[in-house]
Amino acid sequence: MAEYFRRVETVAQWSPVEATKADLFSGSGLFAGLNCFEPGQRQKVHVHEGADKFYFVVSGKARITVGDESRDVAAGTVVWAPAGVRHGVAEAIERTVLLVAIAPPPRPSKF
Amino acid sequence: MAEYFRRVETVAQWSPVEATKADLFSGSGLFAGLNCFEPGQRQKVHVHEGADKFYFVVSGKARITVGDESRDVAAGTVVWAPAGVRHGVAEAIERTVLLVAIAPPPRPSKF
Repeated sequence: MAEYFRRVETVAQWSPVEATKADLFSGSGLFAGLNCFEPGQRQKVHVHEGADKFYFVVSGKARITVGDESRDVAAGTVVWAPAGVRHGVAEAIERTVLLVAIAPPPRPSKF
Repeated sequence: MAEYFRRVETVAQWSPVEATKADLFSGSGLFAGLNCFEPGQRQKVHVHEGADKFYFVVSGKARITVGDESRDVAAGTVVWAPAGVRHGVAEAIERTVLLVAIAPPPRPSKF
């Protein structure tokens, strides 16, 4: 597809070793990418100072933490992680694809 | 659900008159919301100067325009509309929910 249109399933990829990240689009103000998990894989709790972020669960099921709260979330859930609030993926319960938006965009390898 | 977690189906709503918009989350750097369409409804081509945006097709099928290109896209497609590039929904082909991210956030009623 053209530069403006991408299918998630053509970008998503998994590793047996750890969760993976893939870029979709990045502009001066906004980054979009995927985080992909096999069951049991996780993303450490972390904070983006000065950048808002959300996850959208495209497929699968995962336990996601924001602040002091953890929830098991499935496809169709949006998870808001505002600037300065800790967040992460405690554990993927199924093979999971998260669409991630971050603004302003992180430096490479920092999202 | 708590302030950080929202299910799309609890927010999405449709009108027989025109496409609808609903806010999900908004921070200093990023806005997330939904655009919901009945078949045949549209969103006029428009431009966000200085703000990057993407649509993610959560459900349904729609003909989306970015720049000079229009594509029929279904659930699982991400559509990138960088700052200054015209974009819109030429027509919803099915009942459609688009997740929308805009950064920096628009003023109310301007996304």
